[in-house]
Parts: sequence; C-alpha cells; structure tokens
Amino acid sequence: MLNVYLSGEIHTDWREQITEGASDLPISFDGPVTDHGASDDCGAAILGAEENPFWHDHKGAKVNAIRTRMGIEQADVVVVRFGEKYKQWNAAFDAGYAAALGKSLIVLHAPEHRHALKEVDGAALAVAETPEQVVQILRYVLTGKLPA
Amino acid sequence: MLNVYLSGEIHTDWREQITEGASDLPISFDGPVTDHGASDDCGAAILGAEENPFWHDHKGAKVNAIRTRMGIEQADVVVVRFGEKYKQWNAAFDAGYAAALGKSLIVLHAPEHRHALKEVDGAALAVAETPEQVVQILRYVLTGKLPA
Amino acid sequence: MLNVYLSGEIHTDWREQITEGASDLPISFDGPVTDHGASDDCGAAILGAEENPFWHDHKGAKVNAIRTRMGIEQADVVVVRFGEKYKQWNAAFDAGYAAALGKSLIVLHAPEHRHALKEVDGAALAVAETPEQVVQILRYVLTGKLPA
Amino acid sequence: MLNVYLSGEIHTDWREQITEGASDLPISFDGPVTDHGASDDCGAAILGAEENPFWHDHKGAKVNAIRTRMGIEQADVVVVRFGEKYKQWNAAFDAGYAAALGKSLIVLHAPEHRHALKEVDGAALAVAETPEQVVQILRYVLTGKLPA
Amino acid sequence: MLNVYLSGEIHTDWREQITEGASDLPISFDGPVTDHGASDDCGAAILGAEENPFWHDHKGAKVNAIRTRMGIEQADVVVVRFGEKYKQWNAAFDAGYAAALGKSLIVLHAPEHRHALKEVDGAALAVAETPEQVVQILRYVLTGKLPA
Amino acid sequence: MLNVYLSGEIHTDWREQITEGASDLPISFDGPVTDHGASDDCGAAILGAEENPFWHDHKGAKVNAIRTRMGIEQADVVVVRFGEKYKQWNAAFDAGYAAALGKSLIVLHAPEHRHALKEVDGAALAVAETPEQVVQILRYVLTGKLPA
Amino acid sequence: MLNVYLSGEIHTDWREQITEGASDLPISFDGPVTDHGASDDCGAAILGAEENPFWHDHKGAKVNAIRTRMGIEQADVVVVRFGEKYKQWNAAFDAGYAAALGKSLIVLHAPEHRHALKEVDGAALAVAETPEQVVQILRYVLTGKLPA
Amino acid sequence: MLNVYLSGEIHTDWREQITEGASDLPISFDGPVTDHGASDDCGAAILGAEENPFWHDHKGAKVNAIRTRMGIEQADVVVVRFGEKYKQWNAAFDAGYAAALGKSLIVLHAPEHRHALKEVDGAALAVAETPEQVVQILRYVLTGKLPA
Repeated sequence: MLNVYLSGEIHTDWREQITEGASDLPISFDGPVTDHGASDDCGAAILGAEENPFWHDHKGAKVNAIRTRMGIEQADVVVVRFGEKYKQWNAAFDAGYAAALGKSLIVLHAPEHRHALKEVDGAALAVAETPEQVVQILRYVLTGKLPA
Repeated sequence: MLNVYLSGEIHTDWREQITEGASDLPISFDGPVTDHGASDDCGAAILGAEENPFWHDHKGAKVNAIRTRMGIEQADVVVVRFGEKYKQWNAAFDAGYAAALGKSLIVLHAPEHRHALKEVDGAALAVAETPEQVVQILRYVLTGKLPA
Repeated sequence: MLNVYLSGEIHTDWREQITEGASDLPISFDGPVTDHGASDDCGAAILGAEENPFWHDHKGAKVNAIRTRMGIEQADVVVVRFGEKYKQWNAAFDAGYAAALGKSLIVLHAPEHRHALKEVDGAALAVAETPEQVVQILRYVLTGKLPA
Repeated sequence: MLNVYLSGEIHTDWREQITEGASDLPISFDGPVTDHGASDDCGAAILGAEENPFWHDHKGAKVNAIRTRMGIEQADVVVVRFGEKYKQWNAAFDAGYAAALGKSLIVLHAPEHRHALKEVDGAALAVAETPEQVVQILRYVLTGKLPA
Repeated sequence: MLNVYLSGEIHTDWREQITEGASDLPISFDGPVTDHGASDDCGAAILGAEENPFWHDHKGAKVNAIRTRMGIEQADVVVVRFGEKYKQWNAAFDAGYAAALGKSLIVLHAPEHRHALKEVDGAALAVAETPEQVVQILRYVLTGKLPA
Repeated sequence: MLNVYLSGEIHTDWREQITEGASDLPISFDGPVTDHGASDDCGAAILGAEENPFWHDHKGAKVNAIRTRMGIEQADVVVVRFGEKYKQWNAAFDAGYAAALGKSLIVLHAPEHRHALKEVDGAALAVAETPEQVVQILRYVLTGKLPA
Repeated sequence: MLNVYLSGEIHTDWREQITEGASDLPISFDGPVTDHGASDDCGAAILGAEENPFWHDHKGAKVNAIRTRMGIEQADVVVVRFGEKYKQWNAAFDAGYAAALGKSLIVLHAPEHRHALKEVDGAALAVAETPEQVVQILRYVLTGKLPA
Repeated sequence: MLNVYLSGEIHTDWREQITEGASDLPISFDGPVTDHGASDDCGAAILGAEENPFWHDHKGAKVNAIRTRMGIEQADVVVVRFGEKYKQWNAAFDAGYAAALGKSLIVLHAPEHRHALKEVDGAALAVAETPEQVVQILRYVLTGKLPA
C-alpha cells in the first residue's frame, strides 16, 4: 500500500484524474480539504468569529494544518500541483515541508512556470506536466510497468 | 550567538536593514546568494552549459541548494521575506522546509498578502511588516529589551 | 484512522462527550487511566508499599508513564483539557511533551485561564472552550464538513 | 562547558542563587526573559496592539517561544522551578518539552507540591528543594566533588 | 495492541509465566531465540565454521542481532530479566539500547542485585521482583485494573 | 511480519531462490524494478525523451529512487547482492543508504570480492555466499530453527 | 578534536594509561565520576538521606546519569572497559546506550570474557585487550599512523 | 566554516588539487586514511594478526569506519570521487551513507561512468568532472562568486 498526498491547486479536477487513473492500484490518496469556503472559514465557524481578518485566517490555517501536516507526514509520495492562478504559496510551503522530511516529491505544473519553480523542481524526484504522467509514475513505481 | 537565516526576496535592501539594525547583537546572519545573475547561472557556469533551459535551471537550483539547505539547517531563526513581485515560490518552499525542521520562523510581508500567506503565517512565531520589527524581535529574544 | 489522545482533567465527563460525539468517525481514542485511586496507587499496589509518600507517588507516576508516554507518542492529535480545580501540572507537562514531538495539539479550557495558559495555547493548533468544538474540529479534519 | 536552562518561576531570586553559587564552574546559563511586563507585552509592543486579550497574549507567547524553545533545545540540563504562586503551567509545559527531547531534568520545588508534581518529578533525574542543592548537583556532575 | 520485548535470562520459565499470565490481554510478545545451543552456533551453522572461537561467537552474535535489534526497536515496552547465574552482559546491553531509544523499560531481578543494577534500575519505569508483577503492570497499563 | 528488501544484481535468479525458499515464512519481500529496459527508460518514457544521455539516465534514476528509497526505508532487513558483472555501484549505494538508516544488512557475494567489499561487509550483520544461506538466516531470525 | 568517553571499570588505571598515551593527540576525554564512594552516595549526600537502600542507590544512579548520558551523547567514540571483578552491568548498559545512538564503540576486555561479551563485541568497531591498543586506534583514526 | 569530506579514490592527487585550490576559503577538509597499506592493515597491525584474510580485512574495515563514519556525519558537504580503476564499492557505499543522512553530495567522475553511476548522480546536488569544478562550487557556495 502506497500513501500519496495530493497537495496544491484546488480549482481543477487534477485530483480526480489521478485517483481515477490509479483506481486499480493499491494506493491510499489523501489531501487537503478542497471545499474552498470551508477551508477558509473552518477556524471561525468552529472556534468563534474574529473581527480582524488576520486572526480569522490564522484560526483557519491552523485547523487545516492538523489535516495537512498529518497527511504529509504519513505519505510516502507527495504530489504538489501548481496551477495557473493565485500565488499558491501554500503549495510551495507543502513542497518544502515534504522535502525536509525526506518524502519523495513529484511536482506537477505547466512548462511556463519552469523558471519560477526551479528550486521546487530541483528538490523533486519527478517533474510532470499532466496528471496522466503522475499516474504512470505511480503505476511504474508499484508494478514496474511502463505505458504502452 | 544566534544563527539567523534571511530567506526570500532579493530585490530590495531588507537584509541590509536587518543586519545593520542588529549590528550590535551577537548574531551570525546567513542567506542565499543575492546576485540574481550568478544565482541563475551558477550551475551552467561551473558544470557546463545546457541547451534545454529546464536543465540549465535545474543545475543552478541544485548548486544553490548546497548553500540554502545548509543555511536553514544551521539556523536558530529563519526569517522569510515575501516582496511585491514575482511568484517567490522558493521563499515559501524555504518556509516549509524550516517549519518541518522545527526552526523558529519569522515571516515578513506587506498586509495585502495576508490571505495568500495564511498557511505560512500560521506556521510562524511572528509575522512582521517591516525589517525594523524583525530587528526588534531579535533584540528582545537576545536581551529582553523592548523598543522604547 | 486518526489516533487521538485525550490528556488532562479526570473529574468531569468531557472525554465521554468527545468520544460519543465522534462515535461515527474513524478515530481511535486513548488517554490516561481515569480511576483516580488506581492512578495514585498503582505503583505501590503492584510493586510494594512505600512509607515515604514521595516514593509512593514516584512509583505510581512511573507506572502511569508507561501508558501516557506511549499514548502520546502514538497519537496524531493530542487534546489537553484544563479544568477548574487542582494544579493540573501533569496536563501542562503532557502538552509540552506533545509539542516537542511535533504532535497536533488542541487545548480545551475555559476563557478565564487565557492568560495562565498563553504559552500552552501558543503551541496549539486550536484552542477550544467546549468538547463539542473538539468534536467539530475532528469531524472537519476527517471529512471536511463544518457544523451546519 | 555545560549548558543549563533555568525555567519557571520568575518572582524570587533563585536564578541568581544558582548562577552565583556556580560562578566558578564552566556553565553557560540561559533562561526566559524574566521582566514580567516585557514578557507579557513583547508581542503587541513590537508587532502591533491587539484589542482582544487572547491575541495580545498569543503574540507575546510566540515571540517568547523563539527564545525558550531555543534555550531548551540547546541545553544539556534543564532546571524547572515551581514556586508558591500562580498556576505555572508554562513551567510544567517546559518540563514536558524538555523530557520529550531527552534533556536531563532537575525539578526544584517545596515538599508540599510533591503530589501535584509527581508526574513531573517522575520524569526528572533529580528533585531538589533548594537552589543550593541544584548548585551542588551541577558541581558534582562537572567535578565529581560532593559538598563537604 | 502492545508490543512487549522480553530480554535477558533464558534458563528459567519467566517468559512463559508472563505470556501465560497475560494471555487475555492484547499483547504481542517477542524476544530472543531461547534455544541456547542454536543461539550460540547460528552464525557458524549457517555461514560456515570458524576455527577461532572469537569469530565463531562474533558471527553468531551478529545473526542474533538481526532479531534482537528489530525486536527492541519495534517494542513499546522492553522487560529485561537478570537471573542468578552468568554475567548477563547482553541483558544489560539490551537495557541500555532500549533506554537510548526511549522505550519504556521494566527491569526484573531479585533484591540482592539491587546495588549492581542501580544504573539499569535508574533508567527503568518499574523494577519488579516477580513475573507476576510484570503481568500486573501490563494489565494495569492496558486496562487500568489493579490486582484485587 | 518481516519486511525484507532485496537490492542489487538483476541478471540472475537469486531473488526467486530466496522468495521461494522462504515462501513458508511471514516475510514481505520488496526490491527494485528488475526489468532492465524499463528501469533504464522509465524517466524518458513517462516524462519525455532527452537528447543528452546524462539527463535520460538522470530522469530514470530519480523515478526509480521513488521505489528504492521507500523500499529500503520500510525494510527491517536489507539484502544486497553483488554479482560477477558490471560496476554495481547502485548496490553499494543502497548498502550505504541502509547502513546509515540502521537497517540490518546482509551482504551476498562470491568470496573473490572479499577485499573489494570489505567496507560493505564490515557494516553488515551477515556475509553470505549463497541465496540458501540468506533463507537460512531469515528462517532462524523468525523461528529460531537452524538448518538440519 | 575527537570526543572520547571512557566508560566502565573504575578500579584500575586504564583511563590514565589511555589519556597519557594519547596526550599528544587532539582528544577531549570524558567519563563517569571514578571516586567510588562519591559515585555511590552523591544522591543522598546532596538531596537527602534515604533509609531504604534501593532509593539511596536510585537517587545516586540518577544524579550520575546526568553526567554519563551527556558524556555518551557528546562522544564520537565510546570506549567500554570490562574488568575482572564485579557484575559491571552499568558498563554493558553504557555500551548498549552508545550502540543505539550509533556511536563508534571500542570494547576493552581480557580474552577470557570473550563468550560472555559476544553481543557487546558484536556491536563494536574494535575489540581491544590493552589500553595501549586503544591509544593506537585513536592515533590511527586521527593521524593515519600505525605503531612502528 | 564549511566541513567537507573527500571520499573515494586514493590513487591520484585530486584531494590535493581541491584543498590547494580552496586554500583561501574557510573550509575544514576531512577524508579517509589515504595510505593504502596502512588502511588495509590497520586492524591486524593494532589488534592482532588473522590467518583468515576475511577477518584481516574485517578488522581493518571496522577500524577505518571509526574515522569515515565520523567524517561523513560531521560534514556539510561530501564529495565522492570515482576513479578509473578498481571496484570502488566503498566510494559508492559512502555516497549512499551520506545521502541517507541528508548531506549535500557532490560526485566527481569521468563522463564514461555516466550510466553506471546514474543512481549515485541522481542523489547528488552536483556532478563534476574535474577537481577544479568542485573548488568552483565550494567557492560559489561560500562567496557567491562565479569563475571569471
């Protein structure tokens, strides 16, 4: 059983593409809460509202960290996806966290982010452009089979 | 002696402001190579040119990693500065790396990045807006003195 | 499966409120022996009586440590409850122990202990006032669902 | 050179008694900021005031943690003093933190706290009642000499 | 499930007393090979005879270490029994090995070895004189029940 | 259940001899991809072709590392086989990697490589010449039975 | 600078033979308190007398552990000497403790203890019979020079 | 101060080229004993001759390991040189050992070993062909200056 954590961009269906493509493999997938609204508001919704937006965000970020830290620490492989929009600093943060723990890191991004992501790519064992390539890597790692 | 690593943005003089402001304190400062051109080209300049820009960047990122990993690992405190421009994914990567190693993290950024940096801020022991605040924190940590 | 250790106060039913509220979630709960008399006397009852009350306590504290250290070390999340009575130094000790191991820490206490617990709260990922909030956090962490 | 961290109660002169009594020994002493006002207000004074007292305390606790975590992690021996007043949960938190890191722990408290501190004492290598005893332990550890 | 490693003396039936007494508890017991002849000769029997008795012993000790190191590293609790005969340095070695790994150590020996074993006892969480006491500790740790 | 990683030479059937010989034992065997062509080409086949053979090899080596690092890290025992042909530096690299992680190392090679492998053998708990001896060691470690 | 801890037997002058023989080498030697009476009584002398000899010994063993644990943890090389008399279980305990921490272990004993010490010797990088051999090893390790 | 360990081939003057080329930099260089005869015979010369060449080599390999393990563990950067002759399995073993400890690895070899060393190169932060390139990397890492 391989534990794979899918970190990063939450606005496209790349997680579904990977989990469906790898559905015949003995992999347990984990990842952050991908409901954007819930992820932003979880701290205040459970622990009480905050007037200052910094503390609103702070409470939420820490409640989410209970899930994300555990997910990364239990993973054998961490896949980090950088999308087209937003700063995505949390994705890069997760990549650094995973790298420092010695996790196998697979980075997934379009070629135009090559230069901006060179330090993250430099810490990775694979740099993919498509979810399908990630599936092919996981399949090869588990079965030794290459795509036909 | 406190070891402080100054990570992140290399286009303004925030490092100089901190090192000068703290010049009377027993602190050893370290950080990445801040000569942008040398940092980009170090791999190819030393180990040989690459036609493919991905590998050009890759070689450079890894040579720089010799310095940055060591600097973060030897630091007691890691300060990460997010500036106004560029993606700065390497800054967020360094923050995640430092967090996973249990380093004391101080994040330095303008208020408008509050929401995008909430996960990084959530992992930090202090979130500052100015280099002067970082100096005041370091002074307090070492001497117990607050600003007048 | 999430491993949650419930540390601290043993005189109210907060553990039952949490385990019942989270009974539909895949969580394995653990905690100290909550039979106050057995907890105090276990060392002497098994290993022989002591005249000096310091050694009576010492033997018991160490036998209990076999359980509590293991419980904290195996936990993903450690919840520490501070109640209204007693010094509860063992609760704060467990919180420090969990923090040093990098466990996700949730602290549960009434608002009036805010100032006295500021260092413990500062090390936590969530500070709750009610067992129900702890259940809501655990539910969110596992399912991404917020309370209605 | 022995690194000794002196944690806990800040309202009596026990730290001075130990550092003066051990002034002829090759020991580097460290400890928290003992200026109570500065310790309480450091976060708000440097990083900006907070209306909500929880966040006022939170900011201060984290800035202090930069110093205390580093001090404990660099120590060979951690001495934790429990005094007569206040809850002193931060002292017990430090003791747990030190124990989890495998530091040699010396606890210093009056006999009447024996039962409340049994778990902390159970994790310690020595339980002293006076600062002089702590000095004698440090002297013996470094020189092999017992008090005359 | 508790993992308990039973180290030390192999000439009496103390292991059977413990495993039978605890047969109703969710414990997985492990220990060294207790067939004295096989334990002494395993290296030479499998990997080839040695003329020099030092290397005969050396090969056997290392093959046995594959089992004993793994057993101790996987254990939650290590019980070390010192008997009446032989030097039993390997038992004390196992105790030190377990202590350095932070395992919960229970030492089992007759009272007359008190002084010779004081360093080992000092590292233990319980010092028992009979296998029955060890069973009672394990039962208490798992169920909170004291002997009637 | 014992986890055994079989590293090294991929041109003879030594892995089959061990897994078949130990088929009655509770062992989970793992190892690298042994399809030489797939192992060499996996990086380029999945992530895109490279003109420069260094980067062709580099991409493949890193994809394979996802599997081999995980396999070694999860193993209790690492068996490293050195065959008659090729440089086999990856086998020696795996042995060093396993040794630094404190894994139990069994080395398998013909006697004529004795001098060249002395550092690797010096880090091992057993040096075998035949797959059958490895099976006998695994059987002894798990059951205490020596070959008849 | 090499840190060497000299553990074990305290009734002959083997420590002096090693430190004098290596006096021209950049080595910092450490070891336990070798004043037998002080070592036995340190706990009671400093922290108060105990009627029960078990607790008398216990207090002393723990105070000594402050020194011995630190010494072993800071050492690069741990030399453990087994003499002719007494059980010397603390020496074997130190050897196990050092082995679990991955320290380079040198064991020093007369040939007649070969069989009883086979597990300890099996964990060592060198087994010497004389203090002079230990000096020669240290000299070789630091300078590459063999005895003439 | 940078600690650099120079591992591998001992038959050419590459170590001298690096240490001389970097003589103006704050680097402390370490490496194995490079006197081939002393390195082969150190175990037998100090600890007694062995008839069986396996044990002759074994004793020497372990005495050398006291130096090499310590050197690698204390290094910030490990340079491993593969030369033209011999199997050099110890060089690859050192590379694996360094990689598992998270050391920054620089590999130095001629281009024709590209394929055989792909796993080692894949774990490295730089792959150099000449000692001069290693000096340039060290100079850049410490000063940020590229070769003119």
